[in-house]
Amino acid sequence: MTDSGVGTRRLFSRRSFATGAAAAAVVPAVLGTIAAAPKDKPASSGGGEVRNLTLYMEKLPNGEMGYGLHPGQATIPGPLIELTEGDTMNIEVVNNLDVAASLHVHGLDYDTASDGTRMNDSVVQPGARRTYVWRTHAPSRRHDGTWEAGSAGYWHYHDHNVGTEHGTDGIRKGLYGPVVVRRKGDVLPDKTFTVVFNNMTINNRTAPDTPTFKAVRDERVEFLVITHGDFFHTFHVHGHRWTDNRTGIWQGPQDVSQVIDTRTTGPADSFGFQVIAGERVGAGAWMYHCHVQSHSDMGMSGVFVVTEADGTVPGDPHPM
Amino acid sequence: MTDSGVGTRRLFSRRSFATGAAAAAVVPAVLGTIAAAPKDKPASSGGGEVRNLTLYMEKLPNGEMGYGLHPGQATIPGPLIELTEGDTMNIEVVNNLDVAASLHVHGLDYDTASDGTRMNDSVVQPGARRTYVWRTHAPSRRHDGTWEAGSAGYWHYHDHNVGTEHGTDGIRKGLYGPVVVRRKGDVLPDKTFTVVFNNMTINNRTAPDTPTFKAVRDERVEFLVITHGDFFHTFHVHGHRWTDNRTGIWQGPQDVSQVIDTRTTGPADSFGFQVIAGERVGAGAWMYHCHVQSHSDMGMSGVFVVTEADGTVPGDPHPM
Amino acid sequence: MTDSGVGTRRLFSRRSFATGAAAAAVVPAVLGTIAAAPKDKPASSGGGEVRNLTLYMEKLPNGEMGYGLHPGQATIPGPLIELTEGDTMNIEVVNNLDVAASLHVHGLDYDTASDGTRMNDSVVQPGARRTYVWRTHAPSRRHDGTWEAGSAGYWHYHDHNVGTEHGTDGIRKGLYGPVVVRRKGDVLPDKTFTVVFNNMTINNRTAPDTPTFKAVRDERVEFLVITHGDFFHTFHVHGHRWTDNRTGIWQGPQDVSQVIDTRTTGPADSFGFQVIAGERVGAGAWMYHCHVQSHSDMGMSGVFVVTEADGTVPGDPHPM
Repeated sequence: MTDSGVGTRRLFSRRSFATGAAAAAVVPAVLGTIAAAPKDKPASSGGGEVRNLTLYMEKLPNGEMGYGLHPGQATIPGPLIELTEGDTMNIEVVNNLDVAASLHVHGLDYDTASDGTRMNDSVVQPGARRTYVWRTHAPSRRHDGTWEAGSAGYWHYHDHNVGTEHGTDGIRKGLYGPVVVRRKGDVLPDKTFTVVFNNMTINNRTAPDTPTFKAVRDERVEFLVITHGDFFHTFHVHGHRWTDNRTGIWQGPQDVSQVIDTRTTGPADSFGFQVIAGERVGAGAWMYHCHVQSHSDMGMSGVFVVTEADGTVPGDPHPM
Repeated sequence: MTDSGVGTRRLFSRRSFATGAAAAAVVPAVLGTIAAAPKDKPASSGGGEVRNLTLYMEKLPNGEMGYGLHPGQATIPGPLIELTEGDTMNIEVVNNLDVAASLHVHGLDYDTASDGTRMNDSVVQPGARRTYVWRTHAPSRRHDGTWEAGSAGYWHYHDHNVGTEHGTDGIRKGLYGPVVVRRKGDVLPDKTFTVVFNNMTINNRTAPDTPTFKAVRDERVEFLVITHGDFFHTFHVHGHRWTDNRTGIWQGPQDVSQVIDTRTTGPADSFGFQVIAGERVGAGAWMYHCHVQSHSDMGMSGVFVVTEADGTVPGDPHPM
Repeated sequence: MTDSGVGTRRLFSRRSFATGAAAAAVVPAVLGTIAAAPKDKPASSGGGEVRNLTLYMEKLPNGEMGYGLHPGQATIPGPLIELTEGDTMNIEVVNNLDVAASLHVHGLDYDTASDGTRMNDSVVQPGARRTYVWRTHAPSRRHDGTWEAGSAGYWHYHDHNVGTEHGTDGIRKGLYGPVVVRRKGDVLPDKTFTVVFNNMTINNRTAPDTPTFKAVRDERVEFLVITHGDFFHTFHVHGHRWTDNRTGIWQGPQDVSQVIDTRTTGPADSFGFQVIAGERVGAGAWMYHCHVQSHSDMGMSGVFVVTEADGTVPGDPHPM
């Protein structure tokens, strides 16, 4: 396991993101330094680490909105937030927008005070700050003998207040981002790519400005696929398949899950998986796209470029 | 197990339903007494109980239609029908409508004479009665060594004749209801809530008239989610997650299923799950809604209220 | 196992297809003789057989397009291609159309030169031929200890070039077909039926011209369901259920998958399952249809006829 780096505990991601040339304003951030929890802070109820993070909600130059780790650096999607089951994350959200907005997370544990809805008075006024607390937990057995699943999964966060009480305008303009919660012992990827089908866009862009994801052959690549907006889509990537289970990685002969390369997905649905770049298919330019014909034709398509170790790509793929 | 009431065999549900204030005409019925099978009746082929039930198809004052256990008491959705694998249910359907209508069930065993289609001459004329026979079975091994799955699942019934040969008008007007088939030994809930995404409504209502579901913290709550009509939806409930398997309850470390809090669903698709009200998130007002943005904005949203044991709810949630 | 024929290794299918009376032009072909691989051909990387096949892309008399095993015999859907994990298939595609077209497959292994996209210069000009190579593999363990899933699954192929770079017109006109990859030891069906929800049609036809699938009671029938085009659908068949796993067959008490009789599906999504014709429900005329109400009303509906051993059907079902 150590040879491949699999199983190495990584607190922070050594990720690289690649995006289309025209997407300079929306380069997703690398989630870099996260302040350690103060020593006088109580331990997380989940038994893991307690971490603190600041997220800035800002308007982008083109009128879109995004979350960012630093002022003036908001991206679409927002930064990837990665946790291990048991961890608690205190997120101070700074609202630099001119409208009240919020932070609502899927899949994690939070009190109503952190659910980001107007109904529960948990939105942030313009110019104000508010700390949202996300908790996670490992699986355990309840007193009645049933199991409680853990928090591990491919999740996401988004605004729940701009435009409507469901955050329709905030989401449309880009206030969303990815979350991964890992179980201790989960296989870790070399890099993670986030694909958000937001209405008729991918990460608020259409081809040829959609992200170009790059990996070296044999790298372990993780895709996190999130849908937002009003439409349903099917996610397909050429030449690579995954398994319809929690991790997307087949768990062995006892795992009866379907193997898939195209998955139907709808608003706020999310899933993820890992593939070995070019495994059994080689280096090359592999399309990823929504497979609804009119959606891909309208630009919901991008390229996953798998290079050889020396950075070359066989053939000479034509630009789309 | 006895402490929590889990595992107790219950023939009939001790259920409570809560609905929005304006939904008086559509209060779902509690499925109360079901006549025991006559002594001279042959045993069910499934080896379980043989039960008899009468369902009335009726017009509601506002022009909607519903199924009810007693004349004049039709509800939308119709009464929850709960079976254990092996049980047979003889349902005498009385058609008090002025159009021919029927009863078609999903997931259970029935002859063509009980499939509720015009094609198979199994509809009920106005003023007439017809007995539909639903059978269920436990899992078993076939002679060829393969397994036959059991009937356990979160199912539903609906008209298959009003308006079109697929029952489009009947379903639109409210002729649908929930069915649960349990496996012996399945964990039983304290209460069951039925959510039917029927076109752009929940149970033929839009906010603020959608059901308010109420539970006390730590109660075991079951959701049964059914979709009908012409649209696709995603079901999301704040603060609570489930597992993508038969019961919605994680089955332990060998269970590789994805944990979800938002699920894509389409017409006649159904699923269910159980959650512990407020587990790890506390009491409060938790939104449940379709997460297609325009659908929730148009009113496909409701509230799941989790109270403390004394009936109080923390904070002072604002009405939606 | 031998009594029922289950487990018998069949290289080619002894299949029978039934279609609606008016669908003469689109009778799917029986995939008959496939030339054995030349002796001087290298063994498949997957360790299985290497087979060769020729597929003709042609215009049908009514303007539709199809794939066929012989000139002048194109069908919609195209011929069923069946492989066992480890097999390699060399498919020489002959383009008898007047537009450039291609062959793109889902779920299998292929180099970019065989992915059928314009981007990778892998389309076939009118009048030209091109050999696409499909490889498959059995599950195995990687060096890092993780599992690689096998290729087994219910897959499909389609054009990726006619009309748009995503093949929107080619698919709309009928350039698609089914693929099944089996794992050694998989239970084999007596017959396979292919249902393609292509926009608002089934196999490019609407009722009453949709296929009538025929089986004798107790036959093991396989359904392969594929979606194409711009819409989402739900596949439902009356009286028969399957399991939400790789094979659609319940794998026994440790299999926690949901049992379903209606599944949401979107473009390029595919799944399959096997049922025992009439099991626990008897012979009869069983509807299969998209359960989106307006879609079934517009003709996305057909009949699965289960006869007694003597060919009779109980009752006298009315034509739809």
